[in-house]
Amino acid sequence: MPEKRILAIPGPTIFDPSVLRSLTIENMGHLSREFIEVFQYVLSGLRKLVYTSDETQPIVLAGSGTLAMETSVSNLISRGDNILVVANGYFGWSMRDILNRYPVNIDVLESNSPGEAVDNKRIIEKLEEKDYSLVTVTHVDTSTGVRHPIKELAMYTRDTNTVLVVDGVCSVAGEEIRMAEWGVDVLFTGSQKAVGVPVGLAIIWLSEKALDRLEETESQLSPYYMDLTKWIKVMKSYEAGKPKYFATPPVNLIWGLSKSLENIFREGLETRFRRHTLLAEALRKGFEALKLEILSKPGVRSSTITPIYLPKDVALVDFKREMASRNVIVAGGLYPGIRDRYFRVGHMGIMDFNDGASILAAVERSLYSLGYSIDFGKSLKAYQEHLVTHDV
Amino acid sequence: MPEKRILAIPGPTIFDPSVLRSLTIENMGHLSREFIEVFQYVLSGLRKLVYTSDETQPIVLAGSGTLAMETSVSNLISRGDNILVVANGYFGWSMRDILNRYPVNIDVLESNSPGEAVDNKRIIEKLEEKDYSLVTVTHVDTSTGVRHPIKELAMYTRDTNTVLVVDGVCSVAGEEIRMAEWGVDVLFTGSQKAVGVPVGLAIIWLSEKALDRLEETESQLSPYYMDLTKWIKVMKSYEAGKPKYFATPPVNLIWGLSKSLENIFREGLETRFRRHTLLAEALRKGFEALKLEILSKPGVRSSTITPIYLPKDVALVDFKREMASRNVIVAGGLYPGIRDRYFRVGHMGIMDFNDGASILAAVERSLYSLGYSIDFGKSLKAYQEHLVTHDV
Amino acid sequence: MPEKRILAIPGPTIFDPSVLRSLTIENMGHLSREFIEVFQYVLSGLRKLVYTSDETQPIVLAGSGTLAMETSVSNLISRGDNILVVANGYFGWSMRDILNRYPVNIDVLESNSPGEAVDNKRIIEKLEEKDYSLVTVTHVDTSTGVRHPIKELAMYTRDTNTVLVVDGVCSVAGEEIRMAEWGVDVLFTGSQKAVGVPVGLAIIWLSEKALDRLEETESQLSPYYMDLTKWIKVMKSYEAGKPKYFATPPVNLIWGLSKSLENIFREGLETRFRRHTLLAEALRKGFEALKLEILSKPGVRSSTITPIYLPKDVALVDFKREMASRNVIVAGGLYPGIRDRYFRVGHMGIMDFNDGASILAAVERSLYSLGYSIDFGKSLKAYQEHLVTHDV
Amino acid sequence: MPEKRILAIPGPTIFDPSVLRSLTIENMGHLSREFIEVFQYVLSGLRKLVYTSDETQPIVLAGSGTLAMETSVSNLISRGDNILVVANGYFGWSMRDILNRYPVNIDVLESNSPGEAVDNKRIIEKLEEKDYSLVTVTHVDTSTGVRHPIKELAMYTRDTNTVLVVDGVCSVAGEEIRMAEWGVDVLFTGSQKAVGVPVGLAIIWLSEKALDRLEETESQLSPYYMDLTKWIKVMKSYEAGKPKYFATPPVNLIWGLSKSLENIFREGLETRFRRHTLLAEALRKGFEALKLEILSKPGVRSSTITPIYLPKDVALVDFKREMASRNVIVAGGLYPGIRDRYFRVGHMGIMDFNDGASILAAVERSLYSLGYSIDFGKSLKAYQEHLVTHDV
Repeated sequence: MPEKRILAIPGPTIFDPSVLRSLTIENMGHLSREFIEVFQYVLSGLRKLVYTSDETQPIVLAGSGTLAMETSVSNLISRGDNILVVANGYFGWSMRDILNRYPVNIDVLESNSPGEAVDNKRIIEKLEEKDYSLVTVTHVDTSTGVRHPIKELAMYTRDTNTVLVVDGVCSVAGEEIRMAEWGVDVLFTGSQKAVGVPVGLAIIWLSEKALDRLEETESQLSPYYMDLTKWIKVMKSYEAGKPKYFATPPVNLIWGLSKSLENIFREGLETRFRRHTLLAEALRKGFEALKLEILSKPGVRSSTITPIYLPKDVALVDFKREMASRNVIVAGGLYPGIRDRYFRVGHMGIMDFNDGASILAAVERSLYSLGYSIDFGKSLKAYQEHLVTHDV
Repeated sequence: MPEKRILAIPGPTIFDPSVLRSLTIENMGHLSREFIEVFQYVLSGLRKLVYTSDETQPIVLAGSGTLAMETSVSNLISRGDNILVVANGYFGWSMRDILNRYPVNIDVLESNSPGEAVDNKRIIEKLEEKDYSLVTVTHVDTSTGVRHPIKELAMYTRDTNTVLVVDGVCSVAGEEIRMAEWGVDVLFTGSQKAVGVPVGLAIIWLSEKALDRLEETESQLSPYYMDLTKWIKVMKSYEAGKPKYFATPPVNLIWGLSKSLENIFREGLETRFRRHTLLAEALRKGFEALKLEILSKPGVRSSTITPIYLPKDVALVDFKREMASRNVIVAGGLYPGIRDRYFRVGHMGIMDFNDGASILAAVERSLYSLGYSIDFGKSLKAYQEHLVTHDV
Repeated sequence: MPEKRILAIPGPTIFDPSVLRSLTIENMGHLSREFIEVFQYVLSGLRKLVYTSDETQPIVLAGSGTLAMETSVSNLISRGDNILVVANGYFGWSMRDILNRYPVNIDVLESNSPGEAVDNKRIIEKLEEKDYSLVTVTHVDTSTGVRHPIKELAMYTRDTNTVLVVDGVCSVAGEEIRMAEWGVDVLFTGSQKAVGVPVGLAIIWLSEKALDRLEETESQLSPYYMDLTKWIKVMKSYEAGKPKYFATPPVNLIWGLSKSLENIFREGLETRFRRHTLLAEALRKGFEALKLEILSKPGVRSSTITPIYLPKDVALVDFKREMASRNVIVAGGLYPGIRDRYFRVGHMGIMDFNDGASILAAVERSLYSLGYSIDFGKSLKAYQEHLVTHDV
Repeated sequence: MPEKRILAIPGPTIFDPSVLRSLTIENMGHLSREFIEVFQYVLSGLRKLVYTSDETQPIVLAGSGTLAMETSVSNLISRGDNILVVANGYFGWSMRDILNRYPVNIDVLESNSPGEAVDNKRIIEKLEEKDYSLVTVTHVDTSTGVRHPIKELAMYTRDTNTVLVVDGVCSVAGEEIRMAEWGVDVLFTGSQKAVGVPVGLAIIWLSEKALDRLEETESQLSPYYMDLTKWIKVMKSYEAGKPKYFATPPVNLIWGLSKSLENIFREGLETRFRRHTLLAEALRKGFEALKLEILSKPGVRSSTITPIYLPKDVALVDFKREMASRNVIVAGGLYPGIRDRYFRVGHMGIMDFNDGASILAAVERSLYSLGYSIDFGKSLKAYQEHLVTHDV
């Protein structure tokens, strides 16, 4: 299979060649002047990426997004704390599973059905019922493509003692997040999705409120490797130009992140978010033109990933194989019980409108080859018409 | 502008990441064992690429396709020779211009209009009229997208004293060429088109008949750098495992060529040529569905490049800019007098059916944004329907 | 500062260009056939690297060496367990600090002075005194360059209930470790030292005995992300050709690891270990010829890193700067109390005898420029004489 | 053999990783805005590299250094011209062989013995005897390491009608050349030596006087591909921001050249030339300390390459093999009659003082293993002492 293809899964995504090249930097020590400067650029860029500034502390460590999840919460809890977990899909439950390792009381609010978001009203009611130290929510749940309206929730929690933890794995750099303005307290992501760097970086942001909570948290339930107080010292040292050792930082990946941030800011955040939105909308128009049902419900559909139900008589394994034979890689489902009934298309990072057209064209031909009746070009017509309406 | 885009010009083409990586081989001397082995693989692969074997000598030297043109002819001519140049467009005339530097008599046969090929009958009549030492023909003329039926011509010249020189710059590795079976005597190309390696390699094949002619040619009209007798000694030495110096071989580019040949053979020549043909056909169906006229005439349309007339009121410069803003790079015209009236799409090398869909989608939106009336999705419908009919 | 230089710190090390190139693989999903095959090669290669076979389970996850440390122990402990930590320097204490997060009883055996190893007899005495569930030891402590004689220790623990955990961060792929034959139960490392891949992979091996212990350990004290039972299922699934999701695997880094292992086996393990040993010995001869004192004591000196005391009147910061101005990057000390009195030279991975000569030459000139009296060439004479005695 | 090694031949040289990375730029058309800007930077940088400005025209085309040689002279000659070729070794004779293809009268001045330069007085006498249209001289002859004092010669020719053509293949970017101030008329080089880019670029500079001569030269003896009037139009078009097609420019190599020039100017020309000089001097001190004789004579020794006679009883093939087994690649001789009696070490581009030490160390051990008596460290002592005297 050729290396040239369209990787349309929700992470790893398509990486820019310039980012990949940056990974090959040679002979770079983690204490060198060059690396310090790159790391400084990265930390400062990470603040800009989520519209926040010096009062927020970004932290970058080696690990995957799952590490970021656990690190974020394990540092901010004390024994016996009440935690509210909002679950719009698989990654909500992952958060619950993670927290289950810790001596805390967990309440889970689940959406009524796959594709829906838990209503913010329900969450707020719950938060008013009990004294929750933390509420966690997945901004975009990769399993359902549901984007939670976190702004509204943050607007509420900002005036409470509850710390709002947002899982931005599938949203940061693909969806607008105005961390400071909205009042998000903790945000985290991995590198391999909209951030555009191969798997291996866990990235966390702590607001002032979260930093205060970290300081107050004496029980130290976090694992050693995930100890944010230690990591924050490292970050602050690099920012002050004097590197400090805790664990060896992932030099080459951070070099790649620096390049990716540079590319992101060259495009411009607003342009980037608008591109994601339009691509997502146009793709959905395309899928719907083929009479395919979108799993995520209108109003809570993300701009980074779309889950699409397969026609009844089309098997997921066959569909994925047909798509792959056309150099388009899509993901299967992840939501328990319906895993095999839908496929997921990631459309984030540097994926562009050309890829979108290719994906729909491949879907049409793949479904056709599996016996599904197709009016060729129809999905593309809808796709195109949506784009031109928005001057793309 | 992002580096991720669709380079749809007729060379340089889209290069496989694995080929580009090969260019970065470090500390490789031109006399090293590793390089010798790579060069041997390349020379042997080049024979296989055009369905020939040991009796044919491939030569690789540093330079562009234009160097390959001049090298091919300048070594096989003697003062006062009669040369017949078949011109199906710009690159036929280039060959005439090259030969004009040499003390030979040149007759040019031109096609009746842009987009047509000179009829082989006219060529054969001419060859029977006079004693031509060489006849040159462009297999695919990049300016007009015309593919000359060289097999028929070769079938004729193989039994004559005339050496048939085929310019394969825009065809080798994209169009089938059975050099031995058909009786092509001299073939040449550059690296940056269907061969899939950045600009910088001139590649020439000489059949037994051409090698005999080379030996008989005493006048030595070729420039020093282009002296094939010298280059052949170098090639033979490398093939025998004992490198010989004439000019420093382009080590890194040859390393890239080795990788590209490996990829080509992994795909399989027949699969590859069929892919080119189907992509070309489907794209033309797409363009025609938009009522755009193809410059090259039915029957002589190449599988590597398509020239398309623009609608009357659409300016080339605007169209190219609109396409580029959609991350698709197309080329303008090259045929004198109508340069601004058509654009050219290269569709060779590793370009795939996904790119084809993207190109048509971008063309639809670009023309629309320039005021041309578009029935969206129509070109894609035609494209898709052609592909599925051929099980793609 | 040029990118071409000698990175002579104990990690990150000098990476082979072919490994760096592998990091740039494009569009590779973690569930693709190609990635499965690469991951299978990696897991099988990791067994070979430490002379073990199917009964041992290697695990690769995204994170640094510190993550590997914590993951290794946190999965194998139960509340109230007795743990014996052997500390030959900084990384022994790090292990103690990690374990301090867990509800276990820790005894620490420290070496008598920096540069010495804790005597195995003392360890064995201790192990016979009390019922220890785990004993941990750093194979090569990066802070002191001390290589612990783990074979002898393993020979003892293999017949006991105590699980022997070996920190191989600074030894795996640079020092011989015959895991199965010796009886090492748990081994772990990071990617960026002798393994030769940029920071970001934590690698752990569990023997049958360790796997049994893992199964018996019900208390589940390990953090979620470090849960080896989950990771082992993922590894086994990939080995069986059916990928399983727990956290997204670091695709590009694993691709790089695959290339590095390929390079390692091409050199041959025995050749590789001998090269490390000879380079270490020759460098020490060189340093000693300059009347510089080696911190690690004879008999326990590692082949991967050497700590050298600076002359009294030479400041570390000045020395490092002088070396850096000569394109050689060395590390400062790490042992509390004497951090500024010695520097450390890493000599592992693909570092070769040419680098060794360059390092000594740069040390001579750097010390000279700082006012230290140097008999030029003397360190190199000793270095050379040692090498030729061993036919290098 | 590992890719990490010291390539100490006189071209290809050691390339900077950042330059190699630049070669992998993707989807870059030769008419794109980005490429135009890069090409403009390159042309402007090439002027700066030889201390000249707008009045001098640099030209970059695809091909090797040999192509640059022929292109330079073939454009400036008319039938029957008198040409004086100064030969300090192999590449002087190559120039004679090239010119032999053209209808001109050639006089050759040869040095008295290998390693000597032809005395400028002899050249000037000759130039005063006869009306020479061109005099050609190799700045540094790669076969003998002789650096011709071209400044003195240029100072003479600048006031005459004779055009001075300097072969700078083995000197440009490694030796100071003040083209404008000295009065060099034509200068050319290849990319793969001190310029630091893989083989494939021929680079030519024409002074105003040379441009005038080009204009006056009506006979057009140059081959088509080498026609400088055509190439100059292309260069001027790119400089004016409007690309023009003659032959497809080597996009990726030019991208690499742009990066290499950036690196060169970051180091600074004077620093760079001084580094070359000191490295050359120190290496020679080292070789002489081993009682090895330098082929090139004092006073005319280049800073880019050194030829060294082997001890009588050491065979070249054995020596090269021994060196290669130590990861150092040196070249054999090239001067007829004594090819097997000496080896050549290239020390240009990004080669640094660390490499120099490594090379001498490897030479010591290699000669020793071949039975030559060695006082180990002696060459390094001399090397080091020379460097510290110059504060390196």
